[in-house]
Amino acid sequence: MEMVVNAAGRRVPIRINGQAVFPFQGIGQYKPTGRMVGRPLRSCADYPADGDKVVPDIKTALQQCGLRDGMTISTHHHFREGDLVANRLFDCIAEMGVRDIRWFPSAAFVCHAPLINYLEAGVIHHIEGSMNGPLGDYCSEGKMRGTAVLRSHGGRWQALQDGEVHVDIAVIAAPAADRFGNCNGARGPSACGPLGYAEADAQFADKVIVVTDHLVPFPCTPWHIQGQLVDYVVLVDKIGIPEKIVAGTTQITKSPDRLRIAELTAKFAEAAGLIRNGFSFQTGAGGISLAFTKYLEETMRRNKITASFYLGGSNQLPVRMLEEGLIDTIIDIQAFDLQAVCSTRDNPHHIACGPFTTYNYHGKGNFNTLTDIAVLGATQVDLEYNANVVTHSDGRLKHGIGGWQNCLFAKCTVLAIPSFRDRIPVIVDKVTTLTGPAELVDVVVTERGICINPRRTDLLDAIKGTKLPLIDIKSLQHTVQDICGGAPEPPHVGEQVVAVVKWVDGTVLDSIYRVL
Amino acid sequence: MEMVVNAAGRRVPIRINGQAVFPFQGIGQYKPTGRMVGRPLRSCADYPADGDKVVPDIKTALQQCGLRDGMTISTHHHFREGDLVANRLFDCIAEMGVRDIRWFPSAAFVCHAPLINYLEAGVIHHIEGSMNGPLGDYCSEGKMRGTAVLRSHGGRWQALQDGEVHVDIAVIAAPAADRFGNCNGARGPSACGPLGYAEADAQFADKVIVVTDHLVPFPCTPWHIQGQLVDYVVLVDKIGIPEKIVAGTTQITKSPDRLRIAELTAKFAEAAGLIRNGFSFQTGAGGISLAFTKYLEETMRRNKITASFYLGGSNQLPVRMLEEGLIDTIIDIQAFDLQAVCSTRDNPHHIACGPFTTYNYHGKGNFNTLTDIAVLGATQVDLEYNANVVTHSDGRLKHGIGGWQNCLFAKCTVLAIPSFRDRIPVIVDKVTTLTGPAELVDVVVTERGICINPRRTDLLDAIKGTKLPLIDIKSLQHTVQDICGGAPEPPHVGEQVVAVVKWVDGTVLDSIYRVL
Repeated sequence: MEMVVNAAGRRVPIRINGQAVFPFQGIGQYKPTGRMVGRPLRSCADYPADGDKVVPDIKTALQQCGLRDGMTISTHHHFREGDLVANRLFDCIAEMGVRDIRWFPSAAFVCHAPLINYLEAGVIHHIEGSMNGPLGDYCSEGKMRGTAVLRSHGGRWQALQDGEVHVDIAVIAAPAADRFGNCNGARGPSACGPLGYAEADAQFADKVIVVTDHLVPFPCTPWHIQGQLVDYVVLVDKIGIPEKIVAGTTQITKSPDRLRIAELTAKFAEAAGLIRNGFSFQTGAGGISLAFTKYLEETMRRNKITASFYLGGSNQLPVRMLEEGLIDTIIDIQAFDLQAVCSTRDNPHHIACGPFTTYNYHGKGNFNTLTDIAVLGATQVDLEYNANVVTHSDGRLKHGIGGWQNCLFAKCTVLAIPSFRDRIPVIVDKVTTLTGPAELVDVVVTERGICINPRRTDLLDAIKGTKLPLIDIKSLQHTVQDICGGAPEPPHVGEQVVAVVKWVDGTVLDSIYRVL
Repeated sequence: MEMVVNAAGRRVPIRINGQAVFPFQGIGQYKPTGRMVGRPLRSCADYPADGDKVVPDIKTALQQCGLRDGMTISTHHHFREGDLVANRLFDCIAEMGVRDIRWFPSAAFVCHAPLINYLEAGVIHHIEGSMNGPLGDYCSEGKMRGTAVLRSHGGRWQALQDGEVHVDIAVIAAPAADRFGNCNGARGPSACGPLGYAEADAQFADKVIVVTDHLVPFPCTPWHIQGQLVDYVVLVDKIGIPEKIVAGTTQITKSPDRLRIAELTAKFAEAAGLIRNGFSFQTGAGGISLAFTKYLEETMRRNKITASFYLGGSNQLPVRMLEEGLIDTIIDIQAFDLQAVCSTRDNPHHIACGPFTTYNYHGKGNFNTLTDIAVLGATQVDLEYNANVVTHSDGRLKHGIGGWQNCLFAKCTVLAIPSFRDRIPVIVDKVTTLTGPAELVDVVVTERGICINPRRTDLLDAIKGTKLPLIDIKSLQHTVQDICGGAPEPPHVGEQVVAVVKWVDGTVLDSIYRVL
């Protein structure tokens, strides 16, 4: 595999899965040329005049889509650990004797571990999407044919619109759909909230299959996905378990250390003047981020401040703030709990959205740069403020990028993280995998104090004279290394690149190597 | 100009304005190949990080869009006779000294007559869009450089997505917008309802300018047009006069003959079994169509029937039926009066939509074919049921196609028309301009009786035994000719093609000739 050193000093391949790629060139440096990809042109004459696109089952739909070896098939992850469609889809594909499929999910979860059997059996060639849990291990151990490609949610849109990834068949699990294919995630027994991550697939795939367990009379409104984009509709017994949407990263922390991190983050935001009338914020779905939202709410109430918008995957905390008038609008791509699901259905100020206008970097601006403060997690941060979110010090793929890279473009990005995990320091000399360049990481808040990126002299000025526990990142590293008994072991990895991390503009930011 | 005879027996050019075109090949016969056009790829790095795309005035926006001679500029017609943006836009273009612009409006109105000056002066090269009133005369008299191209609303989307028409700069008049360019037509002092006709322009133009008189804080929701599609935002004093939306064709008839036509149409629909629970309908904005809606409402009340959806430009009549539970959903592309404007804003079952999923023929089905009955107007019908909607017997361009061609695909299409106008028969041997092929015209209802296309044996069967005043179209023609003193004079036209009518698939259906 021929490698080059990119603008971040990382060695990256120049071809991935046979396709030429650009190395990372610095933030905002790579400018795309040419035009977006267009869907194949169709004629109404080839679709049923009565608008009834229902076919008996997934297999029939796949057959009519012309499924064949080597195709790319996409799914979305709005059900998270409760997804019942992707595994069933690949059961069908396997039964049809089709091989070498590239699976292009918007994210994969532990519930998709059974698909390892299909990677082993050759039904799936490789996966391009987040590689969590067992799938991450499988990939990290070099067992997957093909190289995994990790993209942010915005990067996934960019890859589809730029024509980097051509999806042959998109399969969209929709909690409510009509026979024409209009569908949404707001209603039905498996309601999951927005269907934002499926928007790009519907727009750019050659063929689109909607799988639903709740067929409603035409027209299914509001149509988050328009039926004009849909080729076939399949009715199944159950597409997902909404209760399992609340999984993994979507519960508030109970750890005193982590609560302290959340509280310090809120105090920093207040002291730096970021919490003012009409401000906007985004938090991740991790436990600390959620706790931060609670502290933020208290600060806002105390100071009688309201926010103009909350951006991002939503949950019961911003939903309550919306209902109580503390937030004007929620712009939501994914509901993280059932309260959020109901809110997207019932509250006209809770907007079901997609990564197009929020996260896509190859567009005419996006919402990320308009957000005043984003509070995110990370697995590692180095002394330059470069950050990692996909691997830990052992080098294994553990987490997807999600919207993380996109959110780094907020006016103030805070990584709210413990200074060590399982006695392994999080502040390191060099991140195992570069996922977020240092220029975009403004503040690191740990239980031991707050580090501010020296590039952000404005923030340093803003908090001058406050009693916030500021700490130099190098001192923090020393303290933590003392506690943990030294720096983390370097990862035991070989030379084989098993995955790459793409930047939001489609360039290659870093490589992930086979663990030994 | 080289001409061929198309599948409808009409002579049509093989090149229009230097571009090769296909002759009409029969309904559903022409199948497009290849892919849709894609927008140019952009980078967020080139757009303001604070999301503020406001520039001081239209001229600045045009300059920054790189306006130059020969470009194509599009506008939409949601303000109808109340539009204040298109004329002002061309004032700016003229002041900038730019020439030979192709104007691509979704429709033009009498209020745009001042643009004739710019056609004369060379600022505008030619117009591709509906040619009504003075613009129609100007074109009919052969004074316009270039050939006018008349398209249906669905055909306009098709032309944009198929790449037939490349728009350099789209100018969208938006009653409410934020600085990022998110905008809608539902709010603000100039609220006009949906912005459906501007959707395609926003999606396919190289550059997009939003002109508003009501700048709201980010985010402007619901965003009918997404800000990610927008390059510049301009704030002006006033973009339109909503009171003038109700103009020309949008008032209920008071003529006893025409009321009789509307009543007969409703009686036919009832007798033919078309008005049943869950049925759907579309009517045009003409006086007879509106009166039909009133009779239909009475029929529905009497029989305790509710409709699943009303499709099309909406007005106070379907709005009241929606509010009273007689219609479940209005799917609306354009509000025809202020009651409709308010309803799109306030009623979640009044869906602001665009011609993409309703009318576009080069898609995966559309809503037109799902509609049970469409009641439309026409200027002429021949004995084969071919129909005309753009010229009268004098051959002059008088009306745009609007959604008319698209609506012909309803399960039952009724032309509800007087048998003569100004003592000129409407039933003719040969329509002056073929706009709708006979296969799609099912019923012609006049004040003298109902003609049913003999192809529709099912409809003839359905009304067998009823007392409806059926009349053979040939007998009707004789009666009308007796009243009017013979057949209409043939139009006094020459050989020069001044305009063409496109079919919904982009093929050329007929030519319109210079009047002598």
